[in-house]
Amino acid sequence: MVADSIINALRNSLGEGNFPLHEPRFAGNEQHYVQECIASTYVSSVGAYVDRFERELASYTGIRRAVAVVNGTAALQVALQLAGVKANDEVIVPALTFIATANAVRYLNAVPHLADSEEATLGLDPRALRDWLKSVAVPAGDAYRNRETGRRISAVVPMHSFGHPCDMDGLLAVAHDYRLVVVEDAAESLGSFYQGQHTGTLGLLGTLSFNGNKIITTGGGGAILTNDERLADHAKHLTTTAKQPHRWEYVHDEVGYNFRMPNLNAALGCAQLEQMSEFLASKRRLFERYEAALMKIDEACLMREPSGCESNYWLQTLVLSDAVADQRDAILQATNDAGLMTRPAWRLMHRLEPYAECPRAPLPVAESLAQRLINLPSSAGLA
Amino acid sequence: MVADSIINALRNSLGEGNFPLHEPRFAGNEQHYVQECIASTYVSSVGAYVDRFERELASYTGIRRAVAVVNGTAALQVALQLAGVKANDEVIVPALTFIATANAVRYLNAVPHLADSEEATLGLDPRALRDWLKSVAVPAGDAYRNRETGRRISAVVPMHSFGHPCDMDGLLAVAHDYRLVVVEDAAESLGSFYQGQHTGTLGLLGTLSFNGNKIITTGGGGAILTNDERLADHAKHLTTTAKQPHRWEYVHDEVGYNFRMPNLNAALGCAQLEQMSEFLASKRRLFERYEAALMKIDEACLMREPSGCESNYWLQTLVLSDAVADQRDAILQATNDAGLMTRPAWRLMHRLEPYAECPRAPLPVAESLAQRLINLPSSAGLA
Repeated sequence: MVADSIINALRNSLGEGNFPLHEPRFAGNEQHYVQECIASTYVSSVGAYVDRFERELASYTGIRRAVAVVNGTAALQVALQLAGVKANDEVIVPALTFIATANAVRYLNAVPHLADSEEATLGLDPRALRDWLKSVAVPAGDAYRNRETGRRISAVVPMHSFGHPCDMDGLLAVAHDYRLVVVEDAAESLGSFYQGQHTGTLGLLGTLSFNGNKIITTGGGGAILTNDERLADHAKHLTTTAKQPHRWEYVHDEVGYNFRMPNLNAALGCAQLEQMSEFLASKRRLFERYEAALMKIDEACLMREPSGCESNYWLQTLVLSDAVADQRDAILQATNDAGLMTRPAWRLMHRLEPYAECPRAPLPVAESLAQRLINLPSSAGLA
Repeated sequence: MVADSIINALRNSLGEGNFPLHEPRFAGNEQHYVQECIASTYVSSVGAYVDRFERELASYTGIRRAVAVVNGTAALQVALQLAGVKANDEVIVPALTFIATANAVRYLNAVPHLADSEEATLGLDPRALRDWLKSVAVPAGDAYRNRETGRRISAVVPMHSFGHPCDMDGLLAVAHDYRLVVVEDAAESLGSFYQGQHTGTLGLLGTLSFNGNKIITTGGGGAILTNDERLADHAKHLTTTAKQPHRWEYVHDEVGYNFRMPNLNAALGCAQLEQMSEFLASKRRLFERYEAALMKIDEACLMREPSGCESNYWLQTLVLSDAVADQRDAILQATNDAGLMTRPAWRLMHRLEPYAECPRAPLPVAESLAQRLINLPSSAGLA
């Protein structure tokens, strides 16, 4: 049984005990900053930690501006709106993603258009996307339309799965040729670099998540990244109810959102961000330990950072061979029963009721990967 | 000058120094609970404080179920969706409200239909609403339609301004007769009771806010209240990405939201909720102190809780007489210059660009109140 071999390999790497999939680690200034935040009484919409977190995120990712918001889904919704996505547009998203990617499109009354992934990155496959657009997209004025639905295809959302960067050069080229705005969903890839550039900084806008399961957490939170000052100012305006600055008047000049990150959560984030290099080093050590332990198993290998990339190894990912794809559920069952928490990749978007009817490309690789990916215990501090 | 008299009255009540409009007070277990929360590592989507905060909110308000969410706007959006508001419906909201009330309607692709307020409560006027609906609403099947726009009018959102309960008996009767679902926006009225029942518990659903300026704060947060267990379960499901419970599979059965309240924020909320009775007592004392100090001023009076109601006196509110309505801005200027932070009521919804074209009833009282209301420094602990 391959399940037994996998459990042995995990036990050799981790030792005895129960291991969650991913738990946060608060080994720095978390208590200190949060206490200070409460003592200041500025726990909410304004405060020094929000400004500092935004500055430090920008500095870490090498972007001009970061705007902290309430979560990664909200970040993506607003980034897509700022990218010019309109109601009834189609937006290219991977079929293999967390549902938030598709939901953010839907909140704008636009339609997710699902595309295939590639095995090398687990992200959108630029060659397959180009072939698909060649057959389905027709030029119409400044844009391209889906010849079957008549809708404008306005943007593409590369999502860097489990922290592994997509082939951004390839995707940027396709986007250029088909006039698609690129908004990166870097919810999982803080600390991941594509050819030396931080993920989320290669498109017009990018988004991050600081949910409790991410490499760093603010409890709940996200951020919008962009090098465009005007878009950043607009992002801040839209996410703070679109209120014009005034000493006392309440004038809101568009339909904004209550999407700001509270200062309390930003305080946690500042402390977490200080530990990024330790988290990354620990996750890389865990990758190496798992890889060595799994080397003897022919039916599975560990997902490795794509060539030219530095992955954050947020979630360690086992890739089963086709031969044992039908044992995936048995492996999930056995590992979880053994106290080693594992999970499969997400169910593909078109296999979910809300997105069953979305336009989609052929999805052979996504279909195959969905049957063969298993995330392993991945918390920072395990190695 | 009435401005000088008002400044004198405020100084007599508050003493020297600068006074913000409303700052939170952390005099209880805030540091303790938040520290414990971080130490537990459960700062995010699950955790004991979220469950406890929901239980204690339900107990305090006397409702069967409370669902904690990320803010009051999100709470109202989801409550309206659960109330059956559909795209292109119209929803009755006061013209005199914070923009979130209208935005929540708009997020559902529905249309705010603005109605007038009454001087006794600062909230929706049931008599004026009935008269207006008599002229504009025509029966169509199970519902009423706006005869001018053809759209269904599906719900009404009483908002309890500055903590003063609306005339709920009157509004419930109108809602009954016109088949409107009642969703209460109780963002400002935690601790306010209408004839012994907590605001937000009289309609099908109600919503609360715990923004930093509210009577209690979670940094950012809100809650949905309902006595309907099925709606509460659905609210929890919708606000947690509509993911079905499963040991590992990611199955989302509808378009949900990432609207849960992080455990870190709920920890703060639990500590705040323990101090409600002190906050309420302090605010009532401040009301009495202000009222006594302002008694000599003929041109203004202090907003008092409506008859049969217990207001939380969240924001103390000066009501100018018609004779000095034109001095409002001079009073705002003078008080703010003196370090006594004041603000007017919100600009009326139809005076804001995003809602300028909404259907609306005649709004004589709202127009008048908007020129005559001034909120005064109101933090708990001032008296």
